[in-house]
Amino acid sequence: MAEFHLLSPAGFRASGVYAGIKSKQAPDVGLLIADEPASAAAVFTTNRVFAAPVKVGRAHVKSGKLRGVVVNAGNANACTGKQGERDALRMCALAAKVAGARPEQILPSSTGIIGHLLPMEKLERGILDAGQYLGSSREHALLFADAILTTDLKRKSAAVQFKVGRERVTLAGVCKGSGMIGPRMSLEGAVDLGLKPRASQRAATNLRAGRTSGTRAKHATMLAYLTTDAQVAAPVLRKLLAGATEGSFNAVTVDDHMSTNDTACLLASGASGVAIARGAALKSFGDALDEVCRALAYQIAADGEGATKVVAITVRRAKSQQIAQTIARAIANSPLVKCAMHGNDPNWGRIVSAAGLAGVPFDPDRAMLKLQGTAVFRAGRPLSFDAARASKSLAAPQVDVDLDCNSGAASATVWTCDLSKEYITINADYHT
Amino acid sequence: MAEFHLLSPAGFRASGVYAGIKSKQAPDVGLLIADEPASAAAVFTTNRVFAAPVKVGRAHVKSGKLRGVVVNAGNANACTGKQGERDALRMCALAAKVAGARPEQILPSSTGIIGHLLPMEKLERGILDAGQYLGSSREHALLFADAILTTDLKRKSAAVQFKVGRERVTLAGVCKGSGMIGPRMSLEGAVDLGLKPRASQRAATNLRAGRTSGTRAKHATMLAYLTTDAQVAAPVLRKLLAGATEGSFNAVTVDDHMSTNDTACLLASGASGVAIARGAALKSFGDALDEVCRALAYQIAADGEGATKVVAITVRRAKSQQIAQTIARAIANSPLVKCAMHGNDPNWGRIVSAAGLAGVPFDPDRAMLKLQGTAVFRAGRPLSFDAARASKSLAAPQVDVDLDCNSGAASATVWTCDLSKEYITINADYHT
Repeated sequence: MAEFHLLSPAGFRASGVYAGIKSKQAPDVGLLIADEPASAAAVFTTNRVFAAPVKVGRAHVKSGKLRGVVVNAGNANACTGKQGERDALRMCALAAKVAGARPEQILPSSTGIIGHLLPMEKLERGILDAGQYLGSSREHALLFADAILTTDLKRKSAAVQFKVGRERVTLAGVCKGSGMIGPRMSLEGAVDLGLKPRASQRAATNLRAGRTSGTRAKHATMLAYLTTDAQVAAPVLRKLLAGATEGSFNAVTVDDHMSTNDTACLLASGASGVAIARGAALKSFGDALDEVCRALAYQIAADGEGATKVVAITVRRAKSQQIAQTIARAIANSPLVKCAMHGNDPNWGRIVSAAGLAGVPFDPDRAMLKLQGTAVFRAGRPLSFDAARASKSLAAPQVDVDLDCNSGAASATVWTCDLSKEYITINADYHT
Repeated sequence: MAEFHLLSPAGFRASGVYAGIKSKQAPDVGLLIADEPASAAAVFTTNRVFAAPVKVGRAHVKSGKLRGVVVNAGNANACTGKQGERDALRMCALAAKVAGARPEQILPSSTGIIGHLLPMEKLERGILDAGQYLGSSREHALLFADAILTTDLKRKSAAVQFKVGRERVTLAGVCKGSGMIGPRMSLEGAVDLGLKPRASQRAATNLRAGRTSGTRAKHATMLAYLTTDAQVAAPVLRKLLAGATEGSFNAVTVDDHMSTNDTACLLASGASGVAIARGAALKSFGDALDEVCRALAYQIAADGEGATKVVAITVRRAKSQQIAQTIARAIANSPLVKCAMHGNDPNWGRIVSAAGLAGVPFDPDRAMLKLQGTAVFRAGRPLSFDAARASKSLAAPQVDVDLDCNSGAASATVWTCDLSKEYITINADYHT
């Protein structure tokens, strides 16, 4: 089977170039361009301190049509006032110029340090350069994927292909994120559509996380860009993206520090000629989107700053989805739990007490906790278990924490990583 | 001036002995006994997973009268089911026996590892031993103060004396806490009296934090015991303690992990003969209580696991007290902010973005941020400052982060510490 990538869906070109914004020599300016106006939807950070590109992006995606995305890494263009907005608009204008589009058809993104004006001379040259190298090969996709990275150690991408009748539809995505990861993104107008995460749990996902040269820039955020050649109306894309985000990007946390720049944008070129509007096709498309978003979110947890493992926390049989998510998130964000996971310590008291502090109903006398399948706590009391064996089981690339609340029918999974000294090194040993 | 200590207020005796519960040889069982039934109030953790001694303590303090407190360190008696409750009651029965009191006149506390039954044979012997060594000297006070410590590196105590007319009143306290520190304590019945932190900001506090032998046990929680020889009715004590807690213990966070055992208990012997009920005397007493609680809370932040400095975060001119506290707490709990503080990095973008993610109104375009007195951000834009000098100013035992919201009249201060590799060492390199 051919390896799918961001440009496997027909109708897109991309590029990534080095413009000298990152301190290390690696791509730091990326362009993703649709040949024709594409249906578009995006979710953005709900941080009250949001970057200039988020403000501009929210405005540009409102029409439901975009020609593309322009991104830089190494500077977040956040807390930069009116000049920041002018610079974000300038990025759009230049990208539009090389794409033969209008500026308001471009969504801009930036990631990197907060509080510094963009180095516009470098960036302008970079965007024009990137315009020269647009293409739709796998190499072009990889260069774009690399251009959005900051402290990430690995490139992150995922793709799936499915059939509608006899026609193939491809959906692909790339993302970045390693630290300053605690996204709670919502649609551009911060409209709550009351969507729930989709329950689909399909397993077969085409993950493709390759090692990069390990460029470590100064800050982080999460950015995700998704492409499909399906033909989908923007309102449908919006609804599906919001739902997919809840169960994926909004369910990953490294340090619970929601960034000023978090953005996920989905572009549908329609180039496959396959219309997605209702019925089985809509279901297949929604499942594919959920799958790609979950695969991308998982890669963010796995590449969290200093991470040596993923910790997958599932809270089940809670009274509501919101309660399940809140408890899972409280466990995921406890530094004590994350340190225990780092030390392969089956110290379940930290997990149960984190569930109790979440501020939502939780009754330890009904609950059961399993670590890597081993029951360690039930009905308010410790269970005897082989601590040495349990510890050994925690020395794995993924640790499953499973808390059964025995109080309802809702469940949620949150992915995080362990907390190591490397996180301190990355985030303390650097001066503004 | 004589050095005040926990037993300076007349009418109390205390002791601390080693019973073999901690892994290192250091006092781990403490008794604090009032000669006569004392007026009493206590606040407890609001974690839905609360330890057996918290359950028993809530019931025992309800009468408003206690004869004393029995504490052990090294084992939290949490998640221990019915047997845990029986053990907590047994602690009370033994303490009552040595004090000539009734079991329900004793408040029990435990701190240490979660999920293990108390080693009752050792503990029973310890309590009886402690009963043999009760006294009211400074040495007795220090032994009790040491007996409650776990991962603490320093003993924590504070005391003030004030006059009501020509009579002296003394108020003193000891506490413990280093990790698993994110208290949100409330009165025994979880009654919200709508009390606000007192505004009093008196400076002259008799701090007395001495180094101990550095016993590091396995877990942590916050415990505080306060004594006074004033004569105060229990309802007044309750109201004052709840208010003082908000601006002190509930305003300190090391890792935002609210413990299962957090407890603060205030005993008033009345032995000074000075009645506190209203007017200037009540004001003086309330101020003294605020002062002692704040001094104790500060010592917890300063001795946070791995801490090299205190970070004092003041959010001012917010729309409400709750907004100010929520923003200050979000800043205090960001691992990115804590790492920046550890690295003396004036990386203010992390602070402003943490304010924006708190989930309460915050407008960066109105705000101003100062680090150690240096303005670094105002009205949505960076200010130019000498980064090297700012970094140097952060290499201090206390760093002041001052965020002016310019949106109202409320303010709040939260104390935390930096995040260092030592925190990881303490919490990852240990096996259950």
